[in-house]
Amino acid sequence: MKAHYQTRGLLIVLSGPSGVGKGTVCAALRKRMPELAYSVSATTRAPREGEREGVNYFFKTVEEFKQMIEREELIEWAQYVGNYYGTPRRFVEETLAQGKDVLLEIDVQGAHQVKQRFPEGIFIFLLPPTMEELKNRIVHRGTESEVTLAHRLNAAADEFKQIHQYDYVVINDEVEKACERVEAIIKAEHCRVDRLVMTE
Amino acid sequence: MKAHYQTRGLLIVLSGPSGVGKGTVCAALRKRMPELAYSVSATTRAPREGEREGVNYFFKTVEEFKQMIEREELIEWAQYVGNYYGTPRRFVEETLAQGKDVLLEIDVQGAHQVKQRFPEGIFIFLLPPTMEELKNRIVHRGTESEVTLAHRLNAAADEFKQIHQYDYVVINDEVEKACERVEAIIKAEHCRVDRLVMTE
Repeated sequence: MKAHYQTRGLLIVLSGPSGVGKGTVCAALRKRMPELAYSVSATTRAPREGEREGVNYFFKTVEEFKQMIEREELIEWAQYVGNYYGTPRRFVEETLAQGKDVLLEIDVQGAHQVKQRFPEGIFIFLLPPTMEELKNRIVHRGTESEVTLAHRLNAAADEFKQIHQYDYVVINDEVEKACERVEAIIKAEHCRVDRLVMTE
Repeated sequence: MKAHYQTRGLLIVLSGPSGVGKGTVCAALRKRMPELAYSVSATTRAPREGEREGVNYFFKTVEEFKQMIEREELIEWAQYVGNYYGTPRRFVEETLAQGKDVLLEIDVQGAHQVKQRFPEGIFIFLLPPTMEELKNRIVHRGTESEVTLAHRLNAAADEFKQIHQYDYVVINDEVEKACERVEAIIKAEHCRVDRLVMTE
């Protein structure tokens, strides 16, 4: 008898409302867990100075992107201010097959789509400790008008209602603590009994 | 809106075959996680020099112990070489209510009983990396005859069959790694979505 954990990686989906600090937590996680792979999005927007194909984005024409949608090559996609953005299934699948865990940082609508197409993912909802704190963070960014602020807070309140479709909730009271929780979740998920492989 | 994790502690049940290193892992965990409470057993055996009531054991007469069984005050119990041993529900319940996690180190039969009476526990099976390794560890103890060794290995093989009743498997390849896994499991379990408390 020989026991080991499954070698296939896990897809970790980190989501939550706008302003909760997904980007900050992900940046801190990159330092803490360099072994984690980050999903690379496909987009139709033009590359900016210094952006590299396959590193920052997979750059696509609108035609190519639409074909990817039709062929179900995206595990989620959306349109923002005239450009398409999406998560290519191929990159995720290949990285998982290589035995690496993949982290996907995504908004709540995107996470909902991923859950339909990739139910075996581990879904984590990043939550502000209070609504007041979320408001402070959005205001602090200074990029929002009063109207957009109200809109964002309403959207967040709606998104909280989807929380029970997630596996875990990470309260983002402090970035380091939030990172420790995400790290523990990933480590623990690898130990789940259904990931054990026993051979003779 | 205010979000926090449930304040009630979790019952963590660490089990596995004889010889796998439950005691060693628990001793290392005590150092790593001093905030963890350890379940104190009740027993009918006489206290040894230096053993203290409520610290090492709750010392009971046979009559008292049998009453505890009848009143369902034990979440598991067994008889070894003429003495009774068991886990009092009260200590576990009170410690969990104080918001502390409780670790219960117990054999596979005991864990099975706990699962019946405390299904909300987190059940971890400690597994040797190979059967060969388990054999080495039992032989290394030097306290077993050839017959007992064979008996123990057979018992272990039987116990492995119960592994799918557990939530997690921790492979005890190295004590420190095993401890890290248990620690991650406890931390991750606190983040499960059903333990979130949101108040207005």
